[in-house]
Amino acid sequence: MTPIKGQATDGRQRRNRSEDVLEAAVRVFHKKGYASASIQDIADEVGVLKGSLYHYIDSKEDLLARLFEDSAGHFMAMLDEASNLDAPPVERLRRFAYACSYWYLQNIERVTIYANEWKHLTGKRLKTVVGIREDYEARLASLIGEAKEAGEARPDLDVNFATYFIFGALNGLPEWYRRRGPDPAERIAESYAGLIVATVVGGGK
Amino acid sequence: MTPIKGQATDGRQRRNRSEDVLEAAVRVFHKKGYASASIQDIADEVGVLKGSLYHYIDSKEDLLARLFEDSAGHFMAMLDEASNLDAPPVERLRRFAYACSYWYLQNIERVTIYANEWKHLTGKRLKTVVGIREDYEARLASLIGEAKEAGEARPDLDVNFATYFIFGALNGLPEWYRRRGPDPAERIAESYAGLIVATVVGGGK
Repeated sequence: MTPIKGQATDGRQRRNRSEDVLEAAVRVFHKKGYASASIQDIADEVGVLKGSLYHYIDSKEDLLARLFEDSAGHFMAMLDEASNLDAPPVERLRRFAYACSYWYLQNIERVTIYANEWKHLTGKRLKTVVGIREDYEARLASLIGEAKEAGEARPDLDVNFATYFIFGALNGLPEWYRRRGPDPAERIAESYAGLIVATVVGGGK
Repeated sequence: MTPIKGQATDGRQRRNRSEDVLEAAVRVFHKKGYASASIQDIADEVGVLKGSLYHYIDSKEDLLARLFEDSAGHFMAMLDEASNLDAPPVERLRRFAYACSYWYLQNIERVTIYANEWKHLTGKRLKTVVGIREDYEARLASLIGEAKEAGEARPDLDVNFATYFIFGALNGLPEWYRRRGPDPAERIAESYAGLIVATVVGGGK
């Protein structure tokens, strides 16, 4: 990709602009919906000409795929950090649950797109994103499985169902967060971490 | 509304046809998405002329609103049945959780629409549906609140957050159910009921 004449080719500046484009895409996709949004809308949001945008992306779908890959990178980093803690599995789960809930609350627009728009991906891109999603689910399932093996979860817990249950609960955050009002994200994230741990540990029967 | 000439005006037949139209709308909205679906698509699915459909509905949006009202009717009936049980709150919660999970699994297409398409409603219809949704959330919150008051839930449980958490988890069912394969709905519903009860009861900390 050739840099635009007269623009700095410095790597860091290029990276920042690429992030600006991603953030602009988040705002535009969230506001208009992915299907209705155009590359022109995103160029307008960034404040550049449409032609310049193609230095950073190949297509609208490319942008959506990158959004998923970038978000998945954040999730995996949070899972890694929690998994590397020197603590019992259930405390590692709590740490991840807090970090993840907090990140969701700080990135409501992006999470809404993550939860709803992945069906618009096609072919190889869809396959990649579904793969990332399955890896991520498998990683959380494995952490829950460790808690179960350590005897910290209830014995009849179905690890896979618990994993899907928890992701569903997290993906529901954007549905109500704005309506709810004045609770700080820290408090909600702490409460959600408690609910996630309870789901796994809980003495239901 | 005048019945079509030559058609039976018998109440039961009319009601059945009205249900057929609703079921056809579920299939069409699920397959094409509400935004892309047309009244013609629904008429084709029912197997009637487009004009005949207007004896049962006013517009596409009218159909979407009825879908919500009809689904909410089922939810409320399940809540009523569970609430009227002569059992401790947590057992009433388990009964509702089982019934609701099972209903979701039997109505995956409808639930997908319920979770994703309500934003297409406008004006008075949107207000009605949001109102129904809030009533329904308040009813579940009140059942969870009873469990807490009875000392069956953990003392630091935030009843509202728990309610949103549980609805999120339920609304996530359509995301993975088809992928998962051979587990019978009864087993998943029982597992989800256990997870919902655990979320409320659980000794997280």
